[in-house]
Amino acid sequence: MNPINIAVDAMGGENSPNKVIKGIEIHSKENKNIFYNIFGDCNKIETTIKKTKIPSNLYKIIHTQNYIEDTDSPLSAAKKGKDTSMWLSIQSLKDNQSDAIVSAGNTGALFVIAKLNLKMIDKIDKPALSALWPNRNGMNIVLDLGANIECSEKNLVDFSLMGSALHKSLFENEISKVALLNIGSEELKGNSVIKNTYQILNEKKNSLFEFKGYIEGNHIMDGDVNVIVTDGFTGNVALKTAEGTANFITSELKNTFNNSFLGKLSGFLNINNLKKFKKKLDPRLYNGAILLGLDKPVIKSHGSTDAIGFANSLKVCEKIIKGNLIDKIKKNII
Amino acid sequence: MNPINIAVDAMGGENSPNKVIKGIEIHSKENKNIFYNIFGDCNKIETTIKKTKIPSNLYKIIHTQNYIEDTDSPLSAAKKGKDTSMWLSIQSLKDNQSDAIVSAGNTGALFVIAKLNLKMIDKIDKPALSALWPNRNGMNIVLDLGANIECSEKNLVDFSLMGSALHKSLFENEISKVALLNIGSEELKGNSVIKNTYQILNEKKNSLFEFKGYIEGNHIMDGDVNVIVTDGFTGNVALKTAEGTANFITSELKNTFNNSFLGKLSGFLNINNLKKFKKKLDPRLYNGAILLGLDKPVIKSHGSTDAIGFANSLKVCEKIIKGNLIDKIKKNII
Repeated sequence: MNPINIAVDAMGGENSPNKVIKGIEIHSKENKNIFYNIFGDCNKIETTIKKTKIPSNLYKIIHTQNYIEDTDSPLSAAKKGKDTSMWLSIQSLKDNQSDAIVSAGNTGALFVIAKLNLKMIDKIDKPALSALWPNRNGMNIVLDLGANIECSEKNLVDFSLMGSALHKSLFENEISKVALLNIGSEELKGNSVIKNTYQILNEKKNSLFEFKGYIEGNHIMDGDVNVIVTDGFTGNVALKTAEGTANFITSELKNTFNNSFLGKLSGFLNINNLKKFKKKLDPRLYNGAILLGLDKPVIKSHGSTDAIGFANSLKVCEKIIKGNLIDKIKKNII
Repeated sequence: MNPINIAVDAMGGENSPNKVIKGIEIHSKENKNIFYNIFGDCNKIETTIKKTKIPSNLYKIIHTQNYIEDTDSPLSAAKKGKDTSMWLSIQSLKDNQSDAIVSAGNTGALFVIAKLNLKMIDKIDKPALSALWPNRNGMNIVLDLGANIECSEKNLVDFSLMGSALHKSLFENEISKVALLNIGSEELKGNSVIKNTYQILNEKKNSLFEFKGYIEGNHIMDGDVNVIVTDGFTGNVALKTAEGTANFITSELKNTFNNSFLGKLSGFLNINNLKKFKKKLDPRLYNGAILLGLDKPVIKSHGSTDAIGFANSLKVCEKIIKGNLIDKIKKNII
C-alpha cells in the first residue's frame, strides 16, 4: 500500500515550527504508513526535528524562504505567495505530491491560496469551513463556520451533502443525520432561504444521510443529529459563543476549586474524575477544521493549539484520506 | 409615593399559577410599595394564595375565563384574545391600571397581543426582545433575541439606543458600552448592514453609551462591553447555543462528581464552593426578557422557570419602572 502523503505548513500559528514538529512526532508514533512533506524554514525545522525521534524515512523538508503571518490580509498573503510555506504546501496537492494539507496559519490566507491553486468540485458553488463539535453521544460536524456570510438554498443543500460525506468518512459506522440550524423547530419559523432548503432536503432521496429538520442552538450538543448546517455568519457566531461559554464556565469552576483549602483538598481527591471531565471538553481533541468543496482536502489547525492539538489535525487528515472524502462528495453532488 | 402596579399573567408557563403566586410572595417580602394585579382563574389563584403570607392589601385578583396555551399559534392566541389572562393583563397597561406586565406564557402570543394593544414608541420601527446574559464583571444586555429575523441599519441603531437605555435603568452606576456581534473584530468583516451600522454608531455622538465596535461570540462573556446588539436570528441562535453549552458542561460535571465514592466525598467537602459556582450560573437569577420598543414595559419570564425565577422577573419589572426605562428610550431616539 502506498503511504499517505500529508503536506504540512510548518510555519503557521503560535510556537511554530516547534509544535508542528512535535505534533508530527506524536502522530507518527500512533499511525503507520504516513509520509510528511514539511514546508518551511529548514534551519528551524531541522533544529527541532533533531530533538525528536521521528524516523528520517518518514519525512522530507522542503525549504521555503518566506511565510505568511497572522497579520497578513488574504490579499497581501496571496501577493507574498509563491515563496511561502503555505503556498508551496498547497501547491504540492496540485502537483499530486501530497494527498492533503494541514496548516495552523492565517485562515483567510489559507482559504484564498487554496482557492487560487485548487479546483472546486464540479457543481459546488461555494466551499464551506466545517469542524467537529462534541455532543452527548460523540461528535457533530458543523458547517459553514465563516467561509460564506450569505448562503443560498443551493449552498445549504451542498453543505448538507458535503457535511454528511465528511461525517461518513470520519465515522464510517454511524448514520449521518442532518439538521438545519434555526430559531424554532416548527416549519413556519426562519427566513425564506432556510424554509426553502427544508423543503428541498425533505423531498430529496439520498443514501448519504437522514434529514431531521430544524435544530435550535440549545440542542446542538444533545446528540440526536450529527451534521448541523447553517450559513457562515450564524455558524461562526454559534461556534465562538459555545467556545466563550465553555471558557467562562471552566474558569469560574477553577476559581471555585482554588479559593479555599477545602476546595484544594477536594480537587486533589477528585483528580481522576476531573481529568476525564477535562478530556471530554478538551478542544485539542477535536482540533482540525476542514475546508470542503475543493477537490483536495485542506485542513486548518487552530493557530493557538499545541503539539497534541496539531497531532489531532494530522489524524483528521489521515482519516479523511482513508475514508475517501472527496470521492464521497463527488458521488453525491447532483 | 404611589405604589408600582405590576400586571401579572398568572396562567402562563409550567406549574402556573403556583409558581407565579409563590414568586409574588418572594418578591413582595423583599420589595415594598409594589401592588400586584393578578389575572387568571380566581379559584386556582385563591387556593394557592391562601397558603402564602402575601398581605391581602398588596394584590387584587382579576378573574379571567380563559388562558393562552403554549401550543397556541400567535394568530389563534390573538383570536382567543379578550377573555384570556394574557390579553387582560396587557390591557391593564393600556388602561393605565398597571405600569408593567410579566407573563411566563407563550412568547409569540405575548408579542402579538402586546403589539395589538400597546403603541410603539415614536420613531421606533421594530420592537426587540432583550435579555440579561452574565459576563465576568456583571451582566450584559443582549438584543434582539428573536423578534426580528432580518434587521436594517436603522433597526440595529435603535436596538443600541434601547439596549443601553435598558442597561442604564437596571444598572444606573455603570457606563453602557455597546458592541455589534460580528464574525471578526476588523472593520472589513461582516455583511453590509453590520458595516453600515458600525459607521453610523461610530459617528453618532450620544450621552447614553460608548460604542466599542465589533465583538465576536467568544468574547460576549468577557465583560469588556455590556450591551450586545445583533439581529434576532443570530441573537436567538447565540443565546440558545450558550444555554446548550452550559447545560452540556454542567451535566458532564455532575456525572464527574457522581460516579465514584471519592467523587461524592469531594462533592460533599466542596459544597459551599459549588453552591457559589451554581449561583453564578443559575439562569433563574437573570430570568426576565424585556420586549423593547413599546410604550409600556412587557416582560417575559421563562416558561419553565420556578418561583425564584419568576420573582426575579418581577424584580426586573420593578427596576425598569424605577429606572424610567421608557422615558430614557424616548429621550434618546432621534
